[in-house]
Amino acid sequence: MKSSQALSAQQIIKQLIPSKSTTKAQGFGEAPVNIALSKYWGKRQVSLNLPTNSSLSISLPGLGTQTHLSLVENNDNTEDQAWLNGKRLAGDSEFAGRLSRYLDLFRPAHHYFKIDTINSVPTAAGLASSASGYAALVKALNDLFDWQLNQRSLSILARLGSGSASRSLFDGFAIWHKGQAEDGMDSFAEALPETWAGLCIGLVKIDTTEKPIGSTAGMQKTVNTCELYQAWPTQAERQVKLIQQAIQEHDFTLIGETAEHNALSMHATMIATWPPILYWQAESVLAMQKVWQLRQQGVEVYFTMDAGPNLKLIFLEPNKNAVKAAFQELDVIQPFG
Amino acid sequence: MKSSQALSAQQIIKQLIPSKSTTKAQGFGEAPVNIALSKYWGKRQVSLNLPTNSSLSISLPGLGTQTHLSLVENNDNTEDQAWLNGKRLAGDSEFAGRLSRYLDLFRPAHHYFKIDTINSVPTAAGLASSASGYAALVKALNDLFDWQLNQRSLSILARLGSGSASRSLFDGFAIWHKGQAEDGMDSFAEALPETWAGLCIGLVKIDTTEKPIGSTAGMQKTVNTCELYQAWPTQAERQVKLIQQAIQEHDFTLIGETAEHNALSMHATMIATWPPILYWQAESVLAMQKVWQLRQQGVEVYFTMDAGPNLKLIFLEPNKNAVKAAFQELDVIQPFG
Repeated sequence: MKSSQALSAQQIIKQLIPSKSTTKAQGFGEAPVNIALSKYWGKRQVSLNLPTNSSLSISLPGLGTQTHLSLVENNDNTEDQAWLNGKRLAGDSEFAGRLSRYLDLFRPAHHYFKIDTINSVPTAAGLASSASGYAALVKALNDLFDWQLNQRSLSILARLGSGSASRSLFDGFAIWHKGQAEDGMDSFAEALPETWAGLCIGLVKIDTTEKPIGSTAGMQKTVNTCELYQAWPTQAERQVKLIQQAIQEHDFTLIGETAEHNALSMHATMIATWPPILYWQAESVLAMQKVWQLRQQGVEVYFTMDAGPNLKLIFLEPNKNAVKAAFQELDVIQPFG
Repeated sequence: MKSSQALSAQQIIKQLIPSKSTTKAQGFGEAPVNIALSKYWGKRQVSLNLPTNSSLSISLPGLGTQTHLSLVENNDNTEDQAWLNGKRLAGDSEFAGRLSRYLDLFRPAHHYFKIDTINSVPTAAGLASSASGYAALVKALNDLFDWQLNQRSLSILARLGSGSASRSLFDGFAIWHKGQAEDGMDSFAEALPETWAGLCIGLVKIDTTEKPIGSTAGMQKTVNTCELYQAWPTQAERQVKLIQQAIQEHDFTLIGETAEHNALSMHATMIATWPPILYWQAESVLAMQKVWQLRQQGVEVYFTMDAGPNLKLIFLEPNKNAVKAAFQELDVIQPFG
């Protein structure tokens, strides 16, 4: 694309979805949450969710979103109707508004959508429910309209809803290439072929209430006011490659150290933003100190943290009991068994 | 200096102190602690304590160090004898070792020093006791040997003991120019002429035990492993100028915002270091959140933090009662009354 004008999401979508489609009575999609081991923080283009850096994630099987979608002819200006975990969303809520603006991109004239979503993760608690949410929604749209899109196109569509959703189309490890094109056609995620039996993710729940600032607003403030952020894109790009290498070689120290360093560096850019963005709670600091103590005692465990107060631990199965002894109420997930 | 060889501290000192001096029976020096409003973090040259960036501080009257010094002829290889707050320091302690290595620079042949130091601040608790300590020691040396050095020379000598000590020679505001010369002769602090009646510093004591890592080791790890640190020297230099402007204009919002942003950015560079350096305790986070809540309620208070868990609050006298109500056991100091 040579145009210096930013393309609209509508123009992108026209290139991706078939011009003619049949509509089923109902579409269904489901997608897992994912935890980035090398984070996405910062957009080079806001309306298309084009990132300043690539990222790499692991999906958590059994935690995610299931969405049923149907289309209803609209003769009386009815708004979209959405249910989250069986509860009707107020049409004027921020959540419903964002959803409807996204669905506008796919909406046939004179129709509204019914969306019935089951989320097995607390919304907006740093477990990236918007990632599994928009990935499941795109799959449900693909099913409803019978587009039969490939994974790359689905990943691009999901990215338009929520950046990290591009990675939630996949099980296991996924890499989201930042891309360079203005239209974002090269900014999509794809699955990595490797698995890692015995790799454990532990969820330390500090706080599951709503975040003080959403990640979109947070990352824009960081990009605009944090001088230390200058070095972040290069660091993150290098760390994505290191984590890929660690996955290929099953080098646990390398994946753990790189993921923890990456997460702390992302939080550092937030802390150096003005006004400051601190997603940590006092309990987050206590949990970090506990992880560092465990390492000093020879239990090799690392953490990562998204835009929220909760820690996600990374360890290998032989250390599961030692980690569970230190962190009570830890949910442990083994993505590859 | 055009030499590409690093100069030794011994060579610097020869240029500064008179070749002949008389020795009194006892020398005395005292110096206040100082709190940097724009921080020193990173050395461009380690052995001479030459910083990567300028810094700007305020001294706290009534908190600091008083040192008596005498010289004893040494016929039996006696080591230096040091007392800290009336307690004899073990000769093999790190503290005593660092002190003696510094005094070696000034030691006449066949002599040892007796050092009697009273410190009114907890050692190594983030209140920069080494700053007032080495500033007082240099003044005591100047008195003992009757050098009659000017402030600039004293500041350079103090810098050789501890970087931030260069600023502790002065009351009120002091700026430490980073300088560019290889021999550091242009890297010294000087007092700013401005005062600011009603400006309050509040000391929130989180933890007064020893730090996990000293600031010299901490800043070298940051310089060597923190990619985000790249932007720090430029940011800090800019913020020194902003704080100078705020002091000249008595612009409280500017001094507060700049100081808090600067401190958080310094801690961000530590957090993005590998292995990570986190001086914060859980209680530090609770105290930060309390400051931000106060601001939201219209009480204009900011904080700064050195390489330790404690917060230092910055506010104006009309808000003293509101701040004291939120922070019990707060020590409030008004540097200019």
